[in-house]
Amino acid sequence: MAPQYAPSLRSRLGPLLFVLQTGFILIFAFCAEVDSNVNVNGSTFKDSYTDFQDVNVMVMFGFGFMCTFLVRHGFSAVGFNLLVATMTTQWAIILNNVESWYYSGKIRLNMRSLVVAEICTVSALVSIGAVLGKTNPVQLVFIALLEVSGFVLNEWLLLNLLKVRPGNSMMLLHIFGAFFGLTVTWILYRKDSEQRFEKEKVDHKSGLFSMLGTVFLWVFWPSFNSALLSGRSPVRKLECVCSSYLALAVSAVTAAAVSVIFNPKGRFNLLHLQSCILSGGVAIGVSMPVVLQPWEAMLIGFAAAILSTIGFHLLQIHMLLAFQCHDTRAILSTHGLPGLLGWLAHFILLIRQCDDHTTAVRFAVFHICTLLITITTSLSMGILTGTTALCWDSLKCVTFRVSVTITHAKLR
Amino acid sequence: MAPQYAPSLRSRLGPLLFVLQTGFILIFAFCAEVDSNVNVNGSTFKDSYTDFQDVNVMVMFGFGFMCTFLVRHGFSAVGFNLLVATMTTQWAIILNNVESWYYSGKIRLNMRSLVVAEICTVSALVSIGAVLGKTNPVQLVFIALLEVSGFVLNEWLLLNLLKVRPGNSMMLLHIFGAFFGLTVTWILYRKDSEQRFEKEKVDHKSGLFSMLGTVFLWVFWPSFNSALLSGRSPVRKLECVCSSYLALAVSAVTAAAVSVIFNPKGRFNLLHLQSCILSGGVAIGVSMPVVLQPWEAMLIGFAAAILSTIGFHLLQIHMLLAFQCHDTRAILSTHGLPGLLGWLAHFILLIRQCDDHTTAVRFAVFHICTLLITITTSLSMGILTGTTALCWDSLKCVTFRVSVTITHAKLR
Amino acid sequence: MAPQYAPSLRSRLGPLLFVLQTGFILIFAFCAEVDSNVNVNGSTFKDSYTDFQDVNVMVMFGFGFMCTFLVRHGFSAVGFNLLVATMTTQWAIILNNVESWYYSGKIRLNMRSLVVAEICTVSALVSIGAVLGKTNPVQLVFIALLEVSGFVLNEWLLLNLLKVRPGNSMMLLHIFGAFFGLTVTWILYRKDSEQRFEKEKVDHKSGLFSMLGTVFLWVFWPSFNSALLSGRSPVRKLECVCSSYLALAVSAVTAAAVSVIFNPKGRFNLLHLQSCILSGGVAIGVSMPVVLQPWEAMLIGFAAAILSTIGFHLLQIHMLLAFQCHDTRAILSTHGLPGLLGWLAHFILLIRQCDDHTTAVRFAVFHICTLLITITTSLSMGILTGTTALCWDSLKCVTFRVSVTITHAKLR
Repeated sequence: MAPQYAPSLRSRLGPLLFVLQTGFILIFAFCAEVDSNVNVNGSTFKDSYTDFQDVNVMVMFGFGFMCTFLVRHGFSAVGFNLLVATMTTQWAIILNNVESWYYSGKIRLNMRSLVVAEICTVSALVSIGAVLGKTNPVQLVFIALLEVSGFVLNEWLLLNLLKVRPGNSMMLLHIFGAFFGLTVTWILYRKDSEQRFEKEKVDHKSGLFSMLGTVFLWVFWPSFNSALLSGRSPVRKLECVCSSYLALAVSAVTAAAVSVIFNPKGRFNLLHLQSCILSGGVAIGVSMPVVLQPWEAMLIGFAAAILSTIGFHLLQIHMLLAFQCHDTRAILSTHGLPGLLGWLAHFILLIRQCDDHTTAVRFAVFHICTLLITITTSLSMGILTGTTALCWDSLKCVTFRVSVTITHAKLR
Repeated sequence: MAPQYAPSLRSRLGPLLFVLQTGFILIFAFCAEVDSNVNVNGSTFKDSYTDFQDVNVMVMFGFGFMCTFLVRHGFSAVGFNLLVATMTTQWAIILNNVESWYYSGKIRLNMRSLVVAEICTVSALVSIGAVLGKTNPVQLVFIALLEVSGFVLNEWLLLNLLKVRPGNSMMLLHIFGAFFGLTVTWILYRKDSEQRFEKEKVDHKSGLFSMLGTVFLWVFWPSFNSALLSGRSPVRKLECVCSSYLALAVSAVTAAAVSVIFNPKGRFNLLHLQSCILSGGVAIGVSMPVVLQPWEAMLIGFAAAILSTIGFHLLQIHMLLAFQCHDTRAILSTHGLPGLLGWLAHFILLIRQCDDHTTAVRFAVFHICTLLITITTSLSMGILTGTTALCWDSLKCVTFRVSVTITHAKLR
Repeated sequence: MAPQYAPSLRSRLGPLLFVLQTGFILIFAFCAEVDSNVNVNGSTFKDSYTDFQDVNVMVMFGFGFMCTFLVRHGFSAVGFNLLVATMTTQWAIILNNVESWYYSGKIRLNMRSLVVAEICTVSALVSIGAVLGKTNPVQLVFIALLEVSGFVLNEWLLLNLLKVRPGNSMMLLHIFGAFFGLTVTWILYRKDSEQRFEKEKVDHKSGLFSMLGTVFLWVFWPSFNSALLSGRSPVRKLECVCSSYLALAVSAVTAAAVSVIFNPKGRFNLLHLQSCILSGGVAIGVSMPVVLQPWEAMLIGFAAAILSTIGFHLLQIHMLLAFQCHDTRAILSTHGLPGLLGWLAHFILLIRQCDDHTTAVRFAVFHICTLLITITTSLSMGILTGTTALCWDSLKCVTFRVSVTITHAKLR
């Protein structure tokens, strides 16, 4: 059975996209220019271009094909993902450069600003994983644009209140995206979380496409984690790539082991693997600035995979029963829990590396504040987005019913 | 029902491929050598290798998987594409170096000559989109080899008559390929354009593979547009990549919007998206040398997507009814119209950038001549190819019927 | 019907993976560190990272999706491949650095050590192709770890006995992997090679995924062949990439031609193409150090494709009948025969390039010894692995039967 959208929604997608796109073009027409200084941040053009392409492949293929496991969502998962990603990236380019726009009147485009915008888009795609299969494209675009605004706001707050460097605050996207997505899905779908989601059924035939997307993400995750590091310090990039690769390898093996142990028939569970082989990459991304030894990365990957698989197994059903919160793509266990684990690992390693007590306490307070600000911004933006969407929706349903009644009355 | 080829054709594919391949090996044996001067055109080896790989991925995956939407053409689309692409690339390497062969007796191989050959192959793959599902592999190889010869001839004409630089004339491949393909399909399949093409039915199950190919093309299109730019000017490459990315993003959003507006049920149309999200990349490729501002690129992408989607919606059926010209992969709206739009944008921007009147008129005449030569060469090569294939085919059918009659007579 | 593993095996996969993974983490904790000297071997970090990513894509996607042609093996082919590849890479990193561990107490991680480890993994994935669809994941992990140990041992023998450089001995992986895999499958499955392998049936619906994997391998094979060449000699890398590309192109065309000639209906055979379009890359990889002219590469690709297609057509059935050796993914004709052909081409070209008679004889003896050592090591490691697996299996079956009998007795 086809999903039941209010017809008014469908007819509004086209004009909405047109208006937004025209607005973006106008903003770019007045303010954007290509940065003629190519050697940004010590990287040559070609180096940053390959970084950009790897992230671009992850955003367009990885996240798009990863979500094809839903029965009624094969083709549209890829289509919606492309639509949302291209809209959000344009919006993120503008938002990230608001400050330079304010001061110099210009938005400067270079490879780095595109990479940063695509990473912001990833945070929106993480959130969307929680509401996928329950929302129409108008809502998806609306949620994604608000999410990315909240994420950029959070980054701005962290930079101005705590002097957290963008490279570090960006990686909190997993925590931000997961909590935002869960709040939105909790507000929007509390009432009908047990029934009606016929679009959410899992299709094992399209599982290979989903696996394709997941393996794409797995392979290019080291590029994602190292994309924001300056080309001036190749040693730092090498460490980051090695750590990410080892953490991902360990989490793939561990996720397989835990999945087999949990399964009564001793088989691999497609959904376990999909959600949990990436957890090592998420956790290492968050804790990257302080991971120095390969074995630390491996241990983080090991713990992340166990936490993520157990979380997937236990939490998803409990959350549905206890909080009536339905999380389609299991973003809590894929991004939320490994992100928090990465934060914790960062915390422990940071304290251990401190020499004296005072610095340790200061770092600890600073680090806890970073997390609190992120979660607070995420939850409040999520509540705002969810409530707006809900009000808008009821308003529209009322309008729809009224117009239907009027039409019926006229017909009689 | 399996397609009905004359049996004689099938038995000829093997020997034909053998003869052609042996011929290519002999030509390479006498003339080709690897260019020992690695720093061609200011790029290091590694830079040009990543360019080559991106184009190679587009040619082998993108075009191969994009055509899997035909019911009876899933696997063979990929197989035929691989076969045609590898044959054509070898032939294009030879043709592109005929001049250096003539003067120095040597065909020099380097990364750039491979990239140029692959771009020529793309023009052949564009043409083949129009006849796909109606032709057997022998005809495909024949059409592709003649198309690429025509394309190299056109480039040579433009260089010698109008001094158009190869980097610019190469990008006319979309216009050349589209008109060539349409002419060939018009000549070959006029009579039976309404029936008999049971291989052309669209299969929505393999739609995801087709989407995979399209997204591959979408992601790597910036590399395609910038592959021929010299590594000595990274600013130019950066501008080209940014413009291409923005134009592609805008055309993806716009194609989705127009597709939803046209669809009576307000849904995305798989075929619309596939054909039209790439139009921005095509248009910007043709107009690239004069696009300086990001908003110009975005506006070109916007216009290209609208033109392409409307073209797809209206033209395909009208062309079938009015001219009995059947265009399987809708190459007119995917490559032809956006290519012409890109040419027009190039024209307008060029005139606007001219200071005095005389230069403007000269540039205008020069630019119009470029288009006229391209279209003339394309149409005449198309007529030549189509007519030859038709004569050959009727000859073969006659031979086939005669031999069948003789066999029957003998049997009696 | 689901495959019949002894239940004891299933329950052991989880703990086994846990123990192995914990062991690897402990070894890394005591010995591994990231190499702070980034400019290894004349390449910058970014250059070697793109090499690594290309090889990584081949290992994870290429080999994973290539094996999806088995009916009951779509998803698990990709999952098992990921599991085996990540385990084996970690093990290969340790094994390859045993010497530096012994002397300096440290395993140094850099991009090159990861690339070398992934190439060792490829040799294990080649072997596994022969037993796929007949083995459970516990056996797969066991076989892969032993195979890679044997391969590293072979490399060490060649280096210490004959002073063969690692870059050259690595490429013998196709010969080593093929003979190892054939020996293992011959020992393990001799008795029941004619029946019972219901998991081995070919599924033409998932053929497109399989083709996807094959085309991935085809596209990135030049990166694979050139990954180990030092960045200090870009000319050598260019020659290697050009040769590999031409050999692959020629072998794709030739494989198509031979496949059509063999097929009674004149169609492409999916399995022929999959196995044989890569043969040119395999043969050129082995003979690379002495191939100087493009036409030599093309001729090697031509011969390899013919040999491989004929081998596929004739050998697979004969080997099953004559030796009761069943080779699921036809690794003999995909890797074994083209590898031997490459060795022969290397031999002939080496002799031809020698000036005087004495050097020629010395080189010939040296070269023949290289092959003999490789095959001997491969066969003996294969016999060892197969026998161990067999004993272990019978032991386990006995245990299983005993425990079943005891349980039954108790129940009565």
